[in-house]
Amino acid sequence: MNGKLVEQITPRDKDFAQWYTDVVKKAGLIDYSGVKGCVILRPYAYAIWENIQKTLDGMFKQTGHENVYMPLLIPESLLQKEKDLVAGFAPEVAWVTHGGEEELTERLCIRPTSETLFCEHYHNTIQSWRDLPKLYNQWCSVVRWEKSTRPFLRHREFLWQEGHTVHATSEEAIEETIAMLETYAEFCEKYLAVPVIKGKKTEKEKFPGARDTYAIESMMHDGRGLQAGTTHYFGDTFAKAFDITFTDKDNKIKFPFQTSWGVSTRLIGGIIMAHGDDSGLILPPRIAPTQLVIIPISAHKEGVMDTAQNVKTRLLTAGIRAGMDISDQTPGWKFAEYEMKGVPLRLEVGPRDIAENMCVVVRRDTGEKQRVSLDNLEREVESLLDAVHDGLLERARLNLSERTYDAFSIDEMKEKLDNQIGFARAMWCGSEDCEQKINDKTTLRSRCIPFEQTKISETCVCCGEPADKMVLFGLQY
Amino acid sequence: MNGKLVEQITPRDKDFAQWYTDVVKKAGLIDYSGVKGCVILRPYAYAIWENIQKTLDGMFKQTGHENVYMPLLIPESLLQKEKDLVAGFAPEVAWVTHGGEEELTERLCIRPTSETLFCEHYHNTIQSWRDLPKLYNQWCSVVRWEKSTRPFLRHREFLWQEGHTVHATSEEAIEETIAMLETYAEFCEKYLAVPVIKGKKTEKEKFPGARDTYAIESMMHDGRGLQAGTTHYFGDTFAKAFDITFTDKDNKIKFPFQTSWGVSTRLIGGIIMAHGDDSGLILPPRIAPTQLVIIPISAHKEGVMDTAQNVKTRLLTAGIRAGMDISDQTPGWKFAEYEMKGVPLRLEVGPRDIAENMCVVVRRDTGEKQRVSLDNLEREVESLLDAVHDGLLERARLNLSERTYDAFSIDEMKEKLDNQIGFARAMWCGSEDCEQKINDKTTLRSRCIPFEQTKISETCVCCGEPADKMVLFGLQY
Repeated sequence: MNGKLVEQITPRDKDFAQWYTDVVKKAGLIDYSGVKGCVILRPYAYAIWENIQKTLDGMFKQTGHENVYMPLLIPESLLQKEKDLVAGFAPEVAWVTHGGEEELTERLCIRPTSETLFCEHYHNTIQSWRDLPKLYNQWCSVVRWEKSTRPFLRHREFLWQEGHTVHATSEEAIEETIAMLETYAEFCEKYLAVPVIKGKKTEKEKFPGARDTYAIESMMHDGRGLQAGTTHYFGDTFAKAFDITFTDKDNKIKFPFQTSWGVSTRLIGGIIMAHGDDSGLILPPRIAPTQLVIIPISAHKEGVMDTAQNVKTRLLTAGIRAGMDISDQTPGWKFAEYEMKGVPLRLEVGPRDIAENMCVVVRRDTGEKQRVSLDNLEREVESLLDAVHDGLLERARLNLSERTYDAFSIDEMKEKLDNQIGFARAMWCGSEDCEQKINDKTTLRSRCIPFEQTKISETCVCCGEPADKMVLFGLQY
Repeated sequence: MNGKLVEQITPRDKDFAQWYTDVVKKAGLIDYSGVKGCVILRPYAYAIWENIQKTLDGMFKQTGHENVYMPLLIPESLLQKEKDLVAGFAPEVAWVTHGGEEELTERLCIRPTSETLFCEHYHNTIQSWRDLPKLYNQWCSVVRWEKSTRPFLRHREFLWQEGHTVHATSEEAIEETIAMLETYAEFCEKYLAVPVIKGKKTEKEKFPGARDTYAIESMMHDGRGLQAGTTHYFGDTFAKAFDITFTDKDNKIKFPFQTSWGVSTRLIGGIIMAHGDDSGLILPPRIAPTQLVIIPISAHKEGVMDTAQNVKTRLLTAGIRAGMDISDQTPGWKFAEYEMKGVPLRLEVGPRDIAENMCVVVRRDTGEKQRVSLDNLEREVESLLDAVHDGLLERARLNLSERTYDAFSIDEMKEKLDNQIGFARAMWCGSEDCEQKINDKTTLRSRCIPFEQTKISETCVCCGEPADKMVLFGLQY
């Protein structure tokens, strides 16, 4: 059985896209619906999302953010209030034209993002400096009518959070934009075991309507980058478009400054592609729905079930998300099943172990087996969970560094890409023309201008003119 | 200031509908959007919803339910698979006809409820008895294009949870339907301090496509009833319409049995109308975002701010959701503000109290003031929060019993209704004709056939024929 299950997945290095689709389906994460790009998040995927949500939500609230809920539907006239935003999103929104049996007098779009709704609300509710800052966030789903779709990475409907804040000064708003990027980066490393590169988007790649867009970029197993989260500084562009004003302490009426920022269920796609292997998913322990699965061996023998149950209770009491499989499937079948599902630790307990007051714990990331005394169980499991986290992060860091290089020519960029070395750090003169040329010649796009800059040469990788910006180029998901 | 704020609300007994609208707006619960019936849940309302969600979600998970996420959009052909459901909902759904610039080949409706999506998924994933039961729930928003709308009570878009379960036997499914009703009832009493009457809907009032619908009915301050939650037993109707089958232990292929159940943000409307008074909201402590607000008196005097801060820290550490208002508004303004917001307890701490190691705690429900020693602070506050809960529940029970009576004639029902005594318990012969006549003559509708039956007479209140069912009639929100 074990062999059979594993055989069903395409090996990662043979066809990464197919491997991804196989894992997503076989680990029980998603099911397809009748509408292209609108997928069903099955319990396992949703439980991962709940853990992501809970942690991030705590981080947002810790920094003074409040949750709200804005409507799903945006009148066409409201969407059109900010010209860049409408240009960016109108081609890909879903339009509601009928309510019940009646045709609507004005079309409504399903929110692709909610800047316009937040701005209208801010226009109605912000009056004085006392009302600022407004630090709002919402958890919801949004719809973007994409042509090509892929589970988690590009849905027509996806779950996300969108933060929208308003500040009295531009300094404060910029600070918020950077702080939320740091929050996302911290979350990715500390909870998802995914290292990220923080940076600013080029003019060409920034969000419609934003003055500056920042992003965290991560590296997948196949050499492609994944943008894991973005934060936007809007300046007072939206405030002016939506006539949001406030009376400041000096009694003058001013336009406030805004930000927005979001991460989505695409983070789950990132986890899969950053950590998974040929046996299936590997979930980072801090967001894994089940952190450890107990598999009783020779469950019919005396004492086995009692000990297994006792182990489970002890671990649950210690706050460890422990599960147990007491079904009539063979241990071999179960091993393969929970490997596929990426459960970070497997705990085997059989008559021989029990006789010695021991059990066996197996790490999903390395396959390493370890005999653990039942006396120190909780402490050992906790430290093994940390070890899996650290191991995954270390491996992902290695993957990131092995697939990142300093590029000094366009040819080099093409050559490295053929070997799945996907992140090129290259100097750029700042012209949009060069950015486009690099894209045309290599298919790579600028991912961001990393905060951590190294002047690897004096001249632009494209035109040879003087350059003082080091840009990260890569293929994107 | 105090007087002024309170003046702005219409007295409850003068114009209940206006009082309700005033409270909803002035307590900062909602704001209107540009689309009728699609409201903005501001931080205070959303925090109440989060507390409701957290508690209910825990209760669902405790009983083995798992969360999933189904798509927002349903193809027209899928909606039409079950004839009663489509007849019930098609007249009030919002239709998406265009994706981006293209017209869709098939219209998609925004989910008014998700039975069809769950059924399609169950059709795809259920094969054997091993896959049963499926105990799924989802938290999401749904859209129903209602003609008349009112905050929380009737939105075109509202937040809710919908449970959808599949069972091998009808007994199990019926058990689930009743168990979830009991869960809702327990939640309403234990967390919202709202007593409910549990019962079964008549044929006429049941959910489209359901074999049986059960409901919990609660009584508002003005004598109208509010249906706080419903659970539905579907039998195998949907299984047959969607071809959901499973191989049972006896190797026979069978249709499974299904249920669904839901509560929504209308619960917030129920809380407002059950507990509020002429000073504003009164929130039940167990779901109040802020359970106690600290108001420093003469905050500039030595020791006041330190003590207030210390009190706050102590209460937060004890798990009490304590807030503090240190703004430069007057204490009077603050008193009125937090009365409007319905914060269950107000804690005043000033120089004189501090000198005696005391503070003053004021109950929102009764206005009762109490001096409390700072030594026993946590314990006293906890017991006062319980007292507010019990007090609210007691008052709501009294309101329910005072507005419920045994009706022996149609005339009596009309007369009592004029006096806002809204729940009539009356005998009914079981004919839909009589049910309709009662409605025509009194405007009352059957709310449910209560589980707790009393044979108050031998004959139907309408036709005088023998009757063995006692029905609860009422006006509904």
